[in-house]
Amino acid sequence: MQGYILKIAYKGTNYCGWQVQPEKPTVQATLQKAITESLGVAVCLTGCSRTDSGVHAKGFVALVTGELPDISKESLPLAINTKLPEDISVLEADYADEDFHPRYSAKGKEYIYKIRNSRIRDPFENDFEWTFPKHIDVEYANELCQELVGRHDFKAFMAAGSKITDTVREIKYFNAERNGDEVIFRVAADGFLYNMVRIMVGTVAHAAAGDKMMPIRDILASLDRANAGITAPAKGLTLNRVFY
Amino acid sequence: MQGYILKIAYKGTNYCGWQVQPEKPTVQATLQKAITESLGVAVCLTGCSRTDSGVHAKGFVALVTGELPDISKESLPLAINTKLPEDISVLEADYADEDFHPRYSAKGKEYIYKIRNSRIRDPFENDFEWTFPKHIDVEYANELCQELVGRHDFKAFMAAGSKITDTVREIKYFNAERNGDEVIFRVAADGFLYNMVRIMVGTVAHAAAGDKMMPIRDILASLDRANAGITAPAKGLTLNRVFY
Repeated sequence: MQGYILKIAYKGTNYCGWQVQPEKPTVQATLQKAITESLGVAVCLTGCSRTDSGVHAKGFVALVTGELPDISKESLPLAINTKLPEDISVLEADYADEDFHPRYSAKGKEYIYKIRNSRIRDPFENDFEWTFPKHIDVEYANELCQELVGRHDFKAFMAAGSKITDTVREIKYFNAERNGDEVIFRVAADGFLYNMVRIMVGTVAHAAAGDKMMPIRDILASLDRANAGITAPAKGLTLNRVFY
Repeated sequence: MQGYILKIAYKGTNYCGWQVQPEKPTVQATLQKAITESLGVAVCLTGCSRTDSGVHAKGFVALVTGELPDISKESLPLAINTKLPEDISVLEADYADEDFHPRYSAKGKEYIYKIRNSRIRDPFENDFEWTFPKHIDVEYANELCQELVGRHDFKAFMAAGSKITDTVREIKYFNAERNGDEVIFRVAADGFLYNMVRIMVGTVAHAAAGDKMMPIRDILASLDRANAGITAPAKGLTLNRVFY
């Protein structure tokens, strides 16, 4: 074994994403510090994904390596959690095989995006959802989502300025569900481009609320970010699961 | 009509309760300022209850009086909400009869108390629940709750030092429900003493987790706060409804 695999949940509101950045609060830096404080050793942490500032995670996967003491996988989460702030929790730990890499071993990821489809914010859920006042036709939203499922070049749904050149990805499923005022999008793919989920949700939400938009097929074919809709706010997005 | 009745939801985390206090952030002061900014007039606000620092509300009722402009009850919430911070929302408004008083007209209130019954905090729900590691036997918790239902002198379940002399209240219902790791208490009464819900929940949770405790009937009969359990933390408590 090369170390431990941690499954982590965090509320991203007060962090500039996962990845360590100088002078900024990040989940990686906070977790690294907590592990060092609880285990008394310096460790190296590798995450399954960068997440953007303000994005949340329920099933984030990280690999811990270094001169680790002999500690059971059952005790490790509890030990680390005592040193973590209230917005990050280690949910479980496991032993990592030699060839495991949180990012390169991943076969896919699932994200959830929450919308409060109301003119009135919900103060309880506000950190985790986008308040969107125009009524979303969820049946129509699902038709639009369906057009994005499959293997496509998603260049039009990638943040402008991103330097990635291979922009083909395969979406396994993408759907929307209404629960009272809440509309929840769920999407899984073998990988995602920068801001891809947020641009897809921004596009589908506005189109399904009756706003003028180019047909999804034409947006895809154009490979031009300018034809897609707005980037939905970070706070509605949660990295829900990573598939291995 | 004497003014407007507002139904308000707020996340209490960053407030020292409802009631205006000098130099401290309170929901009443924040709402008063937002109303003045949106309507351009000074108003008087009367709440249905004081709530403690950190306690939340989903159905708080407040009366607005003063030199109010002519505005429909449909438009009023939206006008005020544009000036409110994200942790307070006016859910709806109605016209108030001359004899309505948010506190004295109330026939009862319902509170909800949320416990995360786990050794691991949920970062998403942490602002709204008490993380309690020992397993709670919910069936037994319900038996204990049942012994508190009815008309009793609840002096033993009132914060020590409280100056109220009439400590008899009638609990209409009090029960616990498990939802996975979550245990949710729901209680309604004609009125509540200071910290009463939090002391009842602290007592029942510990007793139902197997901690040594005097029988509920004996605690009630003793009229002595020292015999009840701990006061559960404020953050798990939500004022859910007010009955008129």
